[in-house]
Amino acid sequence: MINGLLQKIENPIDLRRLKQDLLPDLAAELRSFIIDVVSVKEGHLGASLGVVELTIALHYVFDTPNDLLVWDVGHQAYGHKILTGRKSIFHTNRQLGGISGFPKRDESVFDAFGTGHASTSISAVLGMALASSLKGDLEKQHIAVIGDASIASGMAFEGLNHVGVSHANMLIILNDNAIGIDPSVGALKNYLTQVKNGKNPKQNNIIEALNIRYFGPIDGHDLPKLLKELRRLKKIKGPKFLHVITTKGKGLKQAEEDQVRYHAPGKFDKSTGQLIAKSNEILPPKYQDVFGETLLELALQNKKIIGVTPAMPTGSSLKIMMDALPERAFDVGIAEQHAVTLSAGMVTQGMIVYCNIYSTFLQRAYDQIIHDVALQNLPVIFCLDRAGLVGEDGATHHGVFDLAYLRCIPNLRVFAPLDEIELRQMLYTVSLGISGPVAIRYPRGRGIHTDWKKPFQKIAFGKAKCLQSGSEIAVLSTGHIGNSVKKALGYLPEKNWKKVSHYHFGFVKPLDEEKLIEIALKHKTILTLEDGCLAGGFGSAIVEFYASQVSKIPIERLGIPDTFISHGSIDVLQDLAGISPEKIAEKLNFLLLY
Amino acid sequence: MINGLLQKIENPIDLRRLKQDLLPDLAAELRSFIIDVVSVKEGHLGASLGVVELTIALHYVFDTPNDLLVWDVGHQAYGHKILTGRKSIFHTNRQLGGISGFPKRDESVFDAFGTGHASTSISAVLGMALASSLKGDLEKQHIAVIGDASIASGMAFEGLNHVGVSHANMLIILNDNAIGIDPSVGALKNYLTQVKNGKNPKQNNIIEALNIRYFGPIDGHDLPKLLKELRRLKKIKGPKFLHVITTKGKGLKQAEEDQVRYHAPGKFDKSTGQLIAKSNEILPPKYQDVFGETLLELALQNKKIIGVTPAMPTGSSLKIMMDALPERAFDVGIAEQHAVTLSAGMVTQGMIVYCNIYSTFLQRAYDQIIHDVALQNLPVIFCLDRAGLVGEDGATHHGVFDLAYLRCIPNLRVFAPLDEIELRQMLYTVSLGISGPVAIRYPRGRGIHTDWKKPFQKIAFGKAKCLQSGSEIAVLSTGHIGNSVKKALGYLPEKNWKKVSHYHFGFVKPLDEEKLIEIALKHKTILTLEDGCLAGGFGSAIVEFYASQVSKIPIERLGIPDTFISHGSIDVLQDLAGISPEKIAEKLNFLLLY
Repeated sequence: MINGLLQKIENPIDLRRLKQDLLPDLAAELRSFIIDVVSVKEGHLGASLGVVELTIALHYVFDTPNDLLVWDVGHQAYGHKILTGRKSIFHTNRQLGGISGFPKRDESVFDAFGTGHASTSISAVLGMALASSLKGDLEKQHIAVIGDASIASGMAFEGLNHVGVSHANMLIILNDNAIGIDPSVGALKNYLTQVKNGKNPKQNNIIEALNIRYFGPIDGHDLPKLLKELRRLKKIKGPKFLHVITTKGKGLKQAEEDQVRYHAPGKFDKSTGQLIAKSNEILPPKYQDVFGETLLELALQNKKIIGVTPAMPTGSSLKIMMDALPERAFDVGIAEQHAVTLSAGMVTQGMIVYCNIYSTFLQRAYDQIIHDVALQNLPVIFCLDRAGLVGEDGATHHGVFDLAYLRCIPNLRVFAPLDEIELRQMLYTVSLGISGPVAIRYPRGRGIHTDWKKPFQKIAFGKAKCLQSGSEIAVLSTGHIGNSVKKALGYLPEKNWKKVSHYHFGFVKPLDEEKLIEIALKHKTILTLEDGCLAGGFGSAIVEFYASQVSKIPIERLGIPDTFISHGSIDVLQDLAGISPEKIAEKLNFLLLY
Repeated sequence: MINGLLQKIENPIDLRRLKQDLLPDLAAELRSFIIDVVSVKEGHLGASLGVVELTIALHYVFDTPNDLLVWDVGHQAYGHKILTGRKSIFHTNRQLGGISGFPKRDESVFDAFGTGHASTSISAVLGMALASSLKGDLEKQHIAVIGDASIASGMAFEGLNHVGVSHANMLIILNDNAIGIDPSVGALKNYLTQVKNGKNPKQNNIIEALNIRYFGPIDGHDLPKLLKELRRLKKIKGPKFLHVITTKGKGLKQAEEDQVRYHAPGKFDKSTGQLIAKSNEILPPKYQDVFGETLLELALQNKKIIGVTPAMPTGSSLKIMMDALPERAFDVGIAEQHAVTLSAGMVTQGMIVYCNIYSTFLQRAYDQIIHDVALQNLPVIFCLDRAGLVGEDGATHHGVFDLAYLRCIPNLRVFAPLDEIELRQMLYTVSLGISGPVAIRYPRGRGIHTDWKKPFQKIAFGKAKCLQSGSEIAVLSTGHIGNSVKKALGYLPEKNWKKVSHYHFGFVKPLDEEKLIEIALKHKTILTLEDGCLAGGFGSAIVEFYASQVSKIPIERLGIPDTFISHGSIDVLQDLAGISPEKIAEKLNFLLLY
């Protein structure tokens, strides 16, 4: 710590007592603090380093929390958290019981609106500003800080389109670093780049066209300039827009140079920035890489194959295909709605489109799945990455609703592979031609086989598999969580595990009804298991089916209860939700008492 | 018919044989034909009248169906349908078994992409154009016709943002008539109006800012000019944008003068344009008006109450409040995502926000409900208009998925009133303060009471009601469809109807579990009834509940089967879906055989 400034600051009131010329020193300390903690505790790094000066300037100039400040997405809010009473618990970031990696209303009065998914800040802040105005409070300031990747999303445009006809006392700050998690794309980004490179911002200014006063661009690391500009804007009533240029990863050389890797780099050496090498142990592959590598393999053999991702090429590993076949792999930016309907359009022309969207983000394109794809029965292949509990990203990012929200859509088939080999085989199977849309959901993280590149084999649609035969209880699982059943069986006394059958239902829709009838005849009890919400999910489909049958076999269901699940490691969260191997074993032992 | 031109035209090949100077006459005939049919058969009028010249010009200049043409929303596609082989069956428009009121791929090869919901055309057409380009077809033309209300939606922006960095051979035609169903709103609309009024379109041109070549504005009723411009643009490769100014309702005086009413005017006198007066009989009110009038009544008493609608002020009757209290009732345009998060922002500042969105359009804001509202447990009040089967608008517009997609969201309570009095009382109840979000779903059309303006009374949360007591079967219904149970009971022989209980579950969530236990004890069979999808819906919640209970009472479920339901009258569609009073009675008689 250079001057020990940061240690004296518990909240913005302390901050505002500092002389202005000390703020650059504070910025250096804040940057060090973030690097210190993230280097050992992991988390998102680059985004917060990029807005250190902006964060200080905002809390210095504005009267937070009375003035309302919303950080879009929230990856960049670490500095904000540290300056607003959470310095001493910042090391608990993203851990169970610790603070959230994103702004969260429950956590602090300074977090005016919880974020996580992109592009919500303009709408939320406009709502606050309009409310203030109705309450007659014309002094309160309302500030949205949004990145250049987020502002290109449709939702942000809807907000801007409304801001421009309002008289709301609102400041939109564009944090323009030309990168989201991956580099930003799209025409708006190119326009912003031109402005940064000296184009007269008054020419075809998209913000001015929307009747919002545009200011900037200014250097977001120049504290005196930032403070001056914010003070000036504070006095201007109505909607205004400040274009701030920042560098993601600012202050850590490697993070500036490799902004994608240092978005969330894992552990690293805080003095050198060097990433801590992972062990050399041969591990099963990530589902993501199985997707990426298999898709490329297929695409090399079939010219009709196309890949689409909304802004997640690295995370989804579509990047593997983008690097090899750039003309057939599309990163469309944070634009899930567009991604889905674009895919539908491509499919009408005979292409085979793999549209890869994280489960939680597919919520953004729900109408497009129903209205543009399923209603027209277009054979788009949805690859739902990060389905189930995702761990440290927490409640905003868990992919636990997909089975419920997809199962009700006619024409759509829903598949969840047991392991990465089955994922590979299903990616192959659907490439051979399908009659309607298919959704394939798989989790974040690693599979279970080190040797997964098996020769391609077709999977039969709608068939469940018996993995183990027992006499009393049938466990019906879907997807990767089925591997926890295997572990759970290992925890049972031998007399018990022999009583348990295990069936893998890759297809949540259509259900293998023949097998379900057979199962009911052979067992006394059914236990369903899924890493998705209980309400309306896989187990719900099973009880619906049996309700229509004559036999009334008792059915118990394990899955995510009707509550939002917090952040923490996947294993611990699964245990809390009652779907860890231990909890499955407990449930089986309990059921076998009867 | 002026020259009998239209009767010779079965398809665009016939059209292209006409001499260019006859096209204005054809336009007059086409306009007459549309007016003739719609005046007696009902349907959407104004939008199609506005694009008669554009429709003719497009099919005249371009090689449809090889060139691909997509009509955004599709209200305006009647002329297109008539010129593309559907003239002789146009009178079956929107009827069961007849043609759809919207473009539909199954119906014609000229309908390159089905539409209904707004703002999908740019994404779909870009997908087609990119596919053509990958296939090496650089001559094929790809055209999206989109209105000024639709292009202001986020999804359209996402499409434009991608178009601007593509080299796709694509023409976007902005059909700018300054109105959607209601007058367009927003900053983009104001910008377009300035251009129409003579502002130099090169100044802050939002389309050029997105790197798309902008042409126009031109008069969309001037056929020679349209033809010339389209021929010129046909030769220009890459993305281009043509701004066309039209008048909604063109050619029918009243439709031009009252564009909102003549969007879909019902029956009218084709020579005078006069609307056919409805009978004077006193009918129960529309649910929409009960919403609109009650909200105004409440808002007059409580300054914290705000109404929000995404572009449906007339349809939802929020217009009643907009007229009386314009500063607290917001039409945000076709921007469901923004509407929901804006509401969430307002609620954080203590406002009581009624966010009214049609059930089918709420699909557009699914992520915002989960991520911005429910996760933060913000007490936004969602009013889901047009829930259930909506009739003639058909598959794109039925509100049948909401119970399934909402029921899985933690913190959200879901209510469906039995009648308009219960709607009124629930609107009152939630105005008193609620601890989290609530969704209230109600159907399109009329309630059942002529005397509905009862004094306000609070409704107890989570309670089901017994409407009739019987001995054997318990019918559990939710929402307005419960009134069909009353009718169904009238069809039963007396010995049978005495055996039937009827319970109204206003709350689909939380379920009245105490009552459910009591019901199981008193009856031999349960029959659930809903006007929503069976997969994951209300009946599914009921079977989930009983699956967790010891008692194994047989449960049958009535609701929308797992298929998309076509267009036709609500009564007939309900019968097809097995949920008409007659079908309910049949089911009850059948169950009572055992």
